Amino acid sequence: MLKKSRIPVSTVNRLSLYLRVFSQIEASGQATVASRELAGLSGINPAQVRKDLAYFGQFGRRGVGYAVGSLKRQIRGILGLDRDWNCAIIGMGHLGQALLMYKGLRHQGFNVVAAFDSDPDKIHWELEGVPVYDIAELGSVAQEKKLEIAILAVPASVAHEVAELVARARIPAILNFAPVPLHPGSGVLLRQVDLAGELEALSYQLQKL
Amino acid sequence: MLKKSRIPVSTVNRLSLYLRVFSQIEASGQATVASRELAGLSGINPAQVRKDLAYFGQFGRRGVGYAVGSLKRQIRGILGLDRDWNCAIIGMGHLGQALLMYKGLRHQGFNVVAAFDSDPDKIHWELEGVPVYDIAELGSVAQEKKLEIAILAVPASVAHEVAELVARARIPAILNFAPVPLHPGSGVLLRQVDLAGELEALSYQLQKL
Repeated sequence: MLKKSRIPVSTVNRLSLYLRVFSQIEASGQATVASRELAGLSGINPAQVRKDLAYFGQFGRRGVGYAVGSLKRQIRGILGLDRDWNCAIIGMGHLGQALLMYKGLRHQGFNVVAAFDSDPDKIHWELEGVPVYDIAELGSVAQEKKLEIAILAVPASVAHEVAELVARARIPAILNFAPVPLHPGSGVLLRQVDLAGELEALSYQLQKL
Repeated sequence: MLKKSRIPVSTVNRLSLYLRVFSQIEASGQATVASRELAGLSGINPAQVRKDLAYFGQFGRRGVGYAVGSLKRQIRGILGLDRDWNCAIIGMGHLGQALLMYKGLRHQGFNVVAAFDSDPDKIHWELEGVPVYDIAELGSVAQEKKLEIAILAVPASVAHEVAELVARARIPAILNFAPVPLHPGSGVLLRQVDLAGELEALSYQLQKL
């Protein structure tokens, strides 16, 4: 197998997409998939699909296709999904609570083991079996629970401040839902879910119809 | 001003980002911003910022910078945010309900005027003043309420079926939260929020640390 670090980022993003399609295919009881079918279901062209899968030595057999189960296991290994990750959700507003109750995270190996807020009415309770801590305790809880990913569901006005607390607590990655670009510094990995940005891209295209 | 259709997609995405930064700047009571500061806050390089803003005839004045208020109004106009959009949320699970209660949508001009589900226990109620309809009524409600954007918060297993219903109801745009790639056909605009994909991109990078 090729060294993981040699796989381009765009391929990594497509591997995520293929995983989702494999789950669909498995749910329908199918054990193999042709590159053309995988291409159709994922919206990627067949040549690109074959090229992506060839990165880690997978070649579909003509007339048989790819074995979905083993391919799925391999891709999960490449993406680091063959182990669990300790996640915390920061901000117990509507979005934070919804993320906490979203079973898909745990199902994918993203275990939410702690939640944080600054509202005295919310802290020191449990929600879905997850303890809600005072944000002031972030540093000690991060160490105790070996937190690896901080999911930020806080208002834009405090997002920068919270990102700094995350960096200081040495949590190595942030998934940010706050509608503001963050710059947590070089030691912290960051991905942004820009809900408003997605809607704005739609409104931009809609007004041109 | 340049014709809207001439602005590249990548610039449109950055305009969304600048809008978020302008809100931050306004909140701090500042009326002008230099391209270098705007660049720092948005994580885009200063030359790119100047090029993006020049697309619609905006040139910062040396030593003064850009007027935040008027630039914000102009960008909102370009993105189609100078009017409201009628949105529906389909799927009243945890995520759908959280999106319904998220005030940011309405604040940005994305008015949620209807919600849909197939669970008899959920339909024919109101949540936050928004009526929850039976998904079977999608066609008639879409026409009556002039629905323009369908926000899909349904399980992966039914997402394709629901996207077809949206297309048949002639709702022109979908924002999809279901963890499955959709292909609603050429008549429907689509954006995807891939929560699991963002987390997987983080786990891929984390395991290499």
